[in-house]
Amino acid sequence: MPDLYPSRCDEVPRVIERSDPVVYSSLTSSAPLTAGQIHQYSQDGYVVLRGLFSPSAIKGLRAEAVKLLDNPASLDKETLVTESGSGRVRSIFMVHRQSAAMARLAGNEWLTSIARFLLADDVYVHQSRLNYKPGFVGKEFYWHSDFETWHVEDGMPRMRALSMSILLEPNTPFNGPLMIIPGSHRSFITCVGRTPENHYLTSLKKQEYGTPDQDSIAQLAAQNGIAALTGNAGDVIIFDCNAMHGSNSNITPFPRANAFIVYNAISNRLQSPFGAQTPRPEFIATRELVYAVN
Amino acid sequence: MPDLYPSRCDEVPRVIERSDPVVYSSLTSSAPLTAGQIHQYSQDGYVVLRGLFSPSAIKGLRAEAVKLLDNPASLDKETLVTESGSGRVRSIFMVHRQSAAMARLAGNEWLTSIARFLLADDVYVHQSRLNYKPGFVGKEFYWHSDFETWHVEDGMPRMRALSMSILLEPNTPFNGPLMIIPGSHRSFITCVGRTPENHYLTSLKKQEYGTPDQDSIAQLAAQNGIAALTGNAGDVIIFDCNAMHGSNSNITPFPRANAFIVYNAISNRLQSPFGAQTPRPEFIATRELVYAVN
Repeated sequence: MPDLYPSRCDEVPRVIERSDPVVYSSLTSSAPLTAGQIHQYSQDGYVVLRGLFSPSAIKGLRAEAVKLLDNPASLDKETLVTESGSGRVRSIFMVHRQSAAMARLAGNEWLTSIARFLLADDVYVHQSRLNYKPGFVGKEFYWHSDFETWHVEDGMPRMRALSMSILLEPNTPFNGPLMIIPGSHRSFITCVGRTPENHYLTSLKKQEYGTPDQDSIAQLAAQNGIAALTGNAGDVIIFDCNAMHGSNSNITPFPRANAFIVYNAISNRLQSPFGAQTPRPEFIATRELVYAVN
Repeated sequence: MPDLYPSRCDEVPRVIERSDPVVYSSLTSSAPLTAGQIHQYSQDGYVVLRGLFSPSAIKGLRAEAVKLLDNPASLDKETLVTESGSGRVRSIFMVHRQSAAMARLAGNEWLTSIARFLLADDVYVHQSRLNYKPGFVGKEFYWHSDFETWHVEDGMPRMRALSMSILLEPNTPFNGPLMIIPGSHRSFITCVGRTPENHYLTSLKKQEYGTPDQDSIAQLAAQNGIAALTGNAGDVIIFDCNAMHGSNSNITPFPRANAFIVYNAISNRLQSPFGAQTPRPEFIATRELVYAVN
């Protein structure tokens, strides 16, 4: 299979025009998003759906999240990622296979119908996680395109995947909200350097390879600005797999907790990695256990 | 002299009611601030003056800042503070004694007349610095009250000092703006633990002693919320010496640069430190070279 998006193989970064659609379906009267929402997703690479989950649904999910965070012993140890400074749990991966409530969330009909519409295919969960940026000590996530990693390290062939972040706590301007460079999903910024073996063991805490260069980010941000995707518990942020995003640290007392589900098109199943020797393990990138949801 | 604000001497934190005024003068027709501005400063512990400096004045100050940052060899080495990760210059202290332009800024009639009004006394520069939170790698400053440190480590007797931050670049919601807990200046949160010798050598990069406990911060923030003091180049943020403040990291390409001047009332000159063996050096806390400005 030809590599449309080669990365981590040159000494200097390049900008490759995206050759895949962003919205794969056409608008019909039965579309699960409005024309305005589809337009924004297409143009900016993200859309925020307000109040998709009721306060009582969020209460249940939050209770489940607390239960999981408070009982790390009940979870597969390798799916836990801790903050490098404080040792606090920062993410639980493959959460939809470790919690019935999170499995139901991943299979939620609203979410999956939106994913199937935008990707015009049956979808499966490529990755799921509970992201918990604790108060006081939550550290930043540097700028990155998820697709760059999924392509190079996991073997995802094309840009036909998206992420949904279900807000379990208010994401305010103060507690390190998700920042996206609008329109950045239309260009693929190649990263320089090679991928070390077992990169995932350190990259989930602090990524050093597969990060874009400062000049490219500065240029993208100068052209398009930066959007902070703030919202209330129950809102859902949907963003394209190639949107350039990151977040600042969180010194406030208010944790930033989100459930995070990545849907990939069945037709876009993982191949051999495009730039790594060994594929990353199943808990980070579904390879074997592909089941279409809904 | 009795210690009204003992800190770093107990095992548990305490909240001590402020026994000093916030605004020391009464409103007169010749006051350099409006009644609304004075009210906000009194209630919230800060006020932002919009467009106090013209674009051309800021252009000159920014050029001076770049000149200083680019020529660290020309500066007193101990006044330079670098980022712990990247080694980039984060602050230049005592900048008003190392640059004629910054000396003029510290003596600026607008700034000093406001300081003299709020403190109802002649004032001198207790500390000055150029703060430069670089793009991409700028780290957070954890919550703190300046007065706590100035009292314990420098021997500032009373809360009769204030800080002015002159914005040299836009301080946006995205690049780690100053965050303050409104009204926090009315309570003194004691810190636990003792101050190590020569604490300033590490505390300017990352403070571990003299930081308030998480419960006190959580309580203050739950009561009063958090305000992010964003603004344009040329705006001036004035805040009380005991306002609880901090800032998140900055992964954006946009640096956050401010000139920072602390004015103290002449009557509030430094004594022996209230909780440290040796006073901190002159470049951090003016002790000998006290000259009233304007």
